[in-house]
Amino acid sequence: MAKSLNVAMIGYKFMGKAHSNAWLNAPHFFQGNLLPVRKVVCGRNEGQLNEFAARWGWQETATDWRKVVERTDIDIVDIAVPSHLHHEIAIAAAAAGKHLFCEKPISVSLEHARAMRDAAVAAGVVHFLNHNYRRVPAVVLARQLINEGRIGRIFHWRGAYLQDWIVDPNFPLTWQLRQEIAGSGPHADLNSHSIDLARYLVGDIQSVSAMTAHFITERPLADDNVASAFIAGTARREKGKVTVEDAAFMLVQFANGALGAFEASRFATGRKNYNYFEIYGSKGSLLFNLERMNELQHFSLDDPAHAQGFRTIMVTEAVHPYISAWWPPGHTIGYEHEFTHAVVDFLQAIERGKPVEPNFFDGVKEMEVMEAALESARTGRKVEINQTKP
Amino acid sequence: MAKSLNVAMIGYKFMGKAHSNAWLNAPHFFQGNLLPVRKVVCGRNEGQLNEFAARWGWQETATDWRKVVERTDIDIVDIAVPSHLHHEIAIAAAAAGKHLFCEKPISVSLEHARAMRDAAVAAGVVHFLNHNYRRVPAVVLARQLINEGRIGRIFHWRGAYLQDWIVDPNFPLTWQLRQEIAGSGPHADLNSHSIDLARYLVGDIQSVSAMTAHFITERPLADDNVASAFIAGTARREKGKVTVEDAAFMLVQFANGALGAFEASRFATGRKNYNYFEIYGSKGSLLFNLERMNELQHFSLDDPAHAQGFRTIMVTEAVHPYISAWWPPGHTIGYEHEFTHAVVDFLQAIERGKPVEPNFFDGVKEMEVMEAALESARTGRKVEINQTKP
Amino acid sequence: MAKSLNVAMIGYKFMGKAHSNAWLNAPHFFQGNLLPVRKVVCGRNEGQLNEFAARWGWQETATDWRKVVERTDIDIVDIAVPSHLHHEIAIAAAAAGKHLFCEKPISVSLEHARAMRDAAVAAGVVHFLNHNYRRVPAVVLARQLINEGRIGRIFHWRGAYLQDWIVDPNFPLTWQLRQEIAGSGPHADLNSHSIDLARYLVGDIQSVSAMTAHFITERPLADDNVASAFIAGTARREKGKVTVEDAAFMLVQFANGALGAFEASRFATGRKNYNYFEIYGSKGSLLFNLERMNELQHFSLDDPAHAQGFRTIMVTEAVHPYISAWWPPGHTIGYEHEFTHAVVDFLQAIERGKPVEPNFFDGVKEMEVMEAALESARTGRKVEINQTKP
Amino acid sequence: MAKSLNVAMIGYKFMGKAHSNAWLNAPHFFQGNLLPVRKVVCGRNEGQLNEFAARWGWQETATDWRKVVERTDIDIVDIAVPSHLHHEIAIAAAAAGKHLFCEKPISVSLEHARAMRDAAVAAGVVHFLNHNYRRVPAVVLARQLINEGRIGRIFHWRGAYLQDWIVDPNFPLTWQLRQEIAGSGPHADLNSHSIDLARYLVGDIQSVSAMTAHFITERPLADDNVASAFIAGTARREKGKVTVEDAAFMLVQFANGALGAFEASRFATGRKNYNYFEIYGSKGSLLFNLERMNELQHFSLDDPAHAQGFRTIMVTEAVHPYISAWWPPGHTIGYEHEFTHAVVDFLQAIERGKPVEPNFFDGVKEMEVMEAALESARTGRKVEINQTKP
Repeated sequence: MAKSLNVAMIGYKFMGKAHSNAWLNAPHFFQGNLLPVRKVVCGRNEGQLNEFAARWGWQETATDWRKVVERTDIDIVDIAVPSHLHHEIAIAAAAAGKHLFCEKPISVSLEHARAMRDAAVAAGVVHFLNHNYRRVPAVVLARQLINEGRIGRIFHWRGAYLQDWIVDPNFPLTWQLRQEIAGSGPHADLNSHSIDLARYLVGDIQSVSAMTAHFITERPLADDNVASAFIAGTARREKGKVTVEDAAFMLVQFANGALGAFEASRFATGRKNYNYFEIYGSKGSLLFNLERMNELQHFSLDDPAHAQGFRTIMVTEAVHPYISAWWPPGHTIGYEHEFTHAVVDFLQAIERGKPVEPNFFDGVKEMEVMEAALESARTGRKVEINQTKP
Repeated sequence: MAKSLNVAMIGYKFMGKAHSNAWLNAPHFFQGNLLPVRKVVCGRNEGQLNEFAARWGWQETATDWRKVVERTDIDIVDIAVPSHLHHEIAIAAAAAGKHLFCEKPISVSLEHARAMRDAAVAAGVVHFLNHNYRRVPAVVLARQLINEGRIGRIFHWRGAYLQDWIVDPNFPLTWQLRQEIAGSGPHADLNSHSIDLARYLVGDIQSVSAMTAHFITERPLADDNVASAFIAGTARREKGKVTVEDAAFMLVQFANGALGAFEASRFATGRKNYNYFEIYGSKGSLLFNLERMNELQHFSLDDPAHAQGFRTIMVTEAVHPYISAWWPPGHTIGYEHEFTHAVVDFLQAIERGKPVEPNFFDGVKEMEVMEAALESARTGRKVEINQTKP
Repeated sequence: MAKSLNVAMIGYKFMGKAHSNAWLNAPHFFQGNLLPVRKVVCGRNEGQLNEFAARWGWQETATDWRKVVERTDIDIVDIAVPSHLHHEIAIAAAAAGKHLFCEKPISVSLEHARAMRDAAVAAGVVHFLNHNYRRVPAVVLARQLINEGRIGRIFHWRGAYLQDWIVDPNFPLTWQLRQEIAGSGPHADLNSHSIDLARYLVGDIQSVSAMTAHFITERPLADDNVASAFIAGTARREKGKVTVEDAAFMLVQFANGALGAFEASRFATGRKNYNYFEIYGSKGSLLFNLERMNELQHFSLDDPAHAQGFRTIMVTEAVHPYISAWWPPGHTIGYEHEFTHAVVDFLQAIERGKPVEPNFFDGVKEMEVMEAALESARTGRKVEINQTKP
Repeated sequence: MAKSLNVAMIGYKFMGKAHSNAWLNAPHFFQGNLLPVRKVVCGRNEGQLNEFAARWGWQETATDWRKVVERTDIDIVDIAVPSHLHHEIAIAAAAAGKHLFCEKPISVSLEHARAMRDAAVAAGVVHFLNHNYRRVPAVVLARQLINEGRIGRIFHWRGAYLQDWIVDPNFPLTWQLRQEIAGSGPHADLNSHSIDLARYLVGDIQSVSAMTAHFITERPLADDNVASAFIAGTARREKGKVTVEDAAFMLVQFANGALGAFEASRFATGRKNYNYFEIYGSKGSLLFNLERMNELQHFSLDDPAHAQGFRTIMVTEAVHPYISAWWPPGHTIGYEHEFTHAVVDFLQAIERGKPVEPNFFDGVKEMEVMEAALESARTGRKVEINQTKP
């Protein structure tokens, strides 16, 4: 008989929806001894919150997250609010002994990240940083092929995360374009994903050189409900300053000697959610494109010399990670399945009393690279990173 | 306030899982005035049935489908059992005034299909035949582009549905390989999908020539739990005759003059669930591959002459069918979403008191082509089809 | 020291250009003991002919092909005229003891093809039928992989040869659209290529069912210089009847049990010279697209189960057929290189006194399939082929 | 009547072969008033030189390039020797009033490049730097689409030139791996190409940050005939130091504000001659892959919103640059055609008395970026470039 664990989720927007779906559906597809219960969802706008809770079957709603994270009937705190709010919630929840399921990036500063890590360690709770792309079956397969030695020594990483949603200069000045809230632009939003994947697949980063670009420096002020304002063509006429970068590129040296490149941009016309990486090694190579997330490309020097080539592995078979829980061979999955996998792995970690990855240690290391890159972009110098020991 | 409709689902295997997920999740993503209630699931093996019902939240279980379809508290009967059982259930449920959500193919014979259609029409219920691939956003977009005139007059259709799951001669003699149960092989299983897509996108089929192939004529007898037997290497030693074809190819003439080709095979090594079509018209063309279901390829003569080419539309934007209910731009969906879309459209049809497509009329027309093709393969002659008037 | 062989080429249009380039450049890239000399080119329009000869370095011109093929200083007769003229020239040249380098298709009728084959055999000359796509390195590699057993038993062939050059109804009635000259439409032009490739890679064809389509039944009459008339918009206003098919599709059974499909069309909008095939076998599969002629796609069941996929072999390495004569690894070749390879192989056959493939035996077998298909399209019946013994 | 121009080519290895083919074949496909005559080829090994001259039809051979470039009957000097020799030959030939057709990169130092530029300008001759990839039709089309405004303001460039020929640590220490001869490694060899394309398509580069990697620091000494030694497995046992980098990555800021990334490596397993670029602009985007050189990918915001996507333009139609001289629609060309186009454009420049691009001005600007990048890799600082005024 499965044991129930009560979840309190702070936040109910995009990530709240993705997390709710995962808490709800994980038990339908995966067997486990821990059963998550959607106990309470916490937010500020009561009307929206109630509607959300009703739709997704959360038993209660609350507007004060501090009280929620201290409730004795709560086992798990799911942090699904913007990054600048992670710090305070995570530390309070850890202090209350709750397991932490935290959205990425871990926070908006290295200092905060370290404090979060220390709090979680001190509390002895399971802490999870939800870099969801580590739960794409093709990405897990990439790691498996690397671990099996099929790629050999890794020479190169290239991670590009490209989008195009603000190419239009009339797109309004949403919170993602304001430094005080978002920390940085695509660097925080996109490079953070790529750095996590690079660390997962290649290893720690030792030094970084970076450049940023600022293409459109002011934009129409945004009304409250931004997207609809833009779509409806009613964006306000007054303009405000864009205070984050529009693109952030990096070169890095990995601790193992590999040389890497990163490109993050919101100005790559035609790219919608193009999270792409290439890994080249002494025995083979790997390519991945999130827009084709059910595929992994692989080149192997083990193939006969006249029959070598990049092959497109359909990562949809029972031999592949997570797949047997879903559908028959060749049936693809989509974006939200990553979150379901995350929930499954997180619950398993709690059950086994073992860590899950990525966690707040990873969050700290990622922030070290993030801050070093911004420093490099500012100073024009390569910055060495003293990766924190785990 | 949404009104509830009670669903009784007959069957709980692969399709039962896909349908349960759809009934469950449709209201989480789509707004509607009708709320489906997972009232009762019906099957023969009580142990498995109870476990299934618990997992998916069906309120009750039952083993006698006849009693179930006659219950006055049931609004919708979902037929998710093998095709040879559709006929009897559908007719009884229609007689009881239930709306019908029926898996494809409609039945194993044209005669049965016609009887089902007539029963549904007589009862005045909403009848839906779940050719799920009509609910892939890229496929709906294809239809939209055709309706907008962007393809012009259609000259050609090519539909290939290729798999490879029985290439191994030791794969056992499962029910899909026995004519008495399955009707035919990949013709029933795969060509039926392609025919439905061809009718949806191009139009009715007027004549057909077909050839079939039989590559492996006997196979090890299957134990009850086939897949595991095969995987565990414990397939029985005795062999039995394969009584369905291994591949079925067709040439067809459409009523509108287009010339088409179909290939269905379970012997296409490397193809997992490759449901692929090409449509060529006087103004443009369309290509679709289910293994990349979030994409549609489109060539348009409207492009500047020096910049024409097949373009890969990421069908993941708010302007595309169904997408705005899911995730932000560029975030892909997977196989099961098709069923959710089907449920949404079916409920809307009930609410509006209007038909939904495909329905039992389409099922009959599809069976006309199916049977004509088998006759052609048998006789070596082109067979004309007298498509039933709607 | 290389020995010289004098070539007489009959025809100087598209194929004359491709052949001239091959005779000229073969010795620059490939070592051989026989050196072709561009001795005489033969045609009817003296002005154009002289210009052509000057440009391509033919030593002489002539207008009477009969005299040319009987010249004692001529070793090789290159037949580069339209197909309906092949028959008479080939038989006369064979009678004069010349080696024959003949463009495809062999002729416009099976009867003529047989006469050509018999004349060449009786004369004991080397006879070559220039199905140039057999000289694409990727196609030769496909054959090699098949011969090595990497594909296993072949289950399926699909050959599509799709173009779009007459989609515009105002495209004029050129000779290719008149049966008396061209024999048939894309069937003669395109299916002939696909049949040759299918025979090369899969084997002989045993039976065929076919359908044809006629989309545009009359077109503006063409002036002499058709293409320019069309481009300049000066096509004549009067219309004439199109007397060939616009598309020809076939289903076939191969002697080895494989089931195949062919599509040939000039109405596949967006396809320029799309000569595409798929071969599925018990151990692996092969895909080829002439528009990406330097690549071959290959799936192999020999790969580890979790790392299988279609791989794109860049057929540009020294281990691949013909490549080492050209450029370093990864440097691609183009269309005309096929003809150079043909000349190289043809000369080598002469030097060794051995046959080269394809030859007039292949031409006869191909015509048997071609004629059977037209009969099937006419009668609506599957036609059995009694493949001539070699 | 065409006027003849006598060519003297210095060098006869890989580039000698590519240039000979171009001088030879340009007049067969392209009309022009200047006819190049393969007058004299110059090299040091008389045996090899004679064989080469005989094969490619050079009228004379010579071993002293100084005497050759001063011959009064020579009109054009073609510099096809390693880069460190360009400087002296180009200056002498310019002084003698010869037009210069010079292989890339222009030289091994900025100082030399400037001297070459000054000499050519002083002499008033036509000077051409053969960055052959500017003559790929798809690349010229990219420029045309940019010039037509279809891409809008350019935000990003990414140029990757990846190969894998020295991944094997037993590959010997050839001259390309020795700094004293080659200048640098893939930076000189590959980044130089990418920089030229970036300047052609995006514009001048203003600042650069770079990192290099050195994966294999010593290798078996090479015998004279390196490649064969390696292939035959007879590479010498003693090892020597590799004195160039194995990979060189760059970030750059363009004068127009665009942000760019470059990757050049000989350690990208599976990449043979992967010269790839991406250009993202405010109205559209362009992608090019040399391994598919007959294609250009293009995204356009001008397309209908629901039908936007990257399209694959087959750059094989009469409307595309250079194509009408070759073959009918859809017929692809290969690597060597770029050189033929270069010769055609170079001759046209001479005929018209106008400059051709790229030329020695471009060579200087490219060397400025090259040297700045090496300085950056050495110092860890971003380096500003003072692009020479033309």
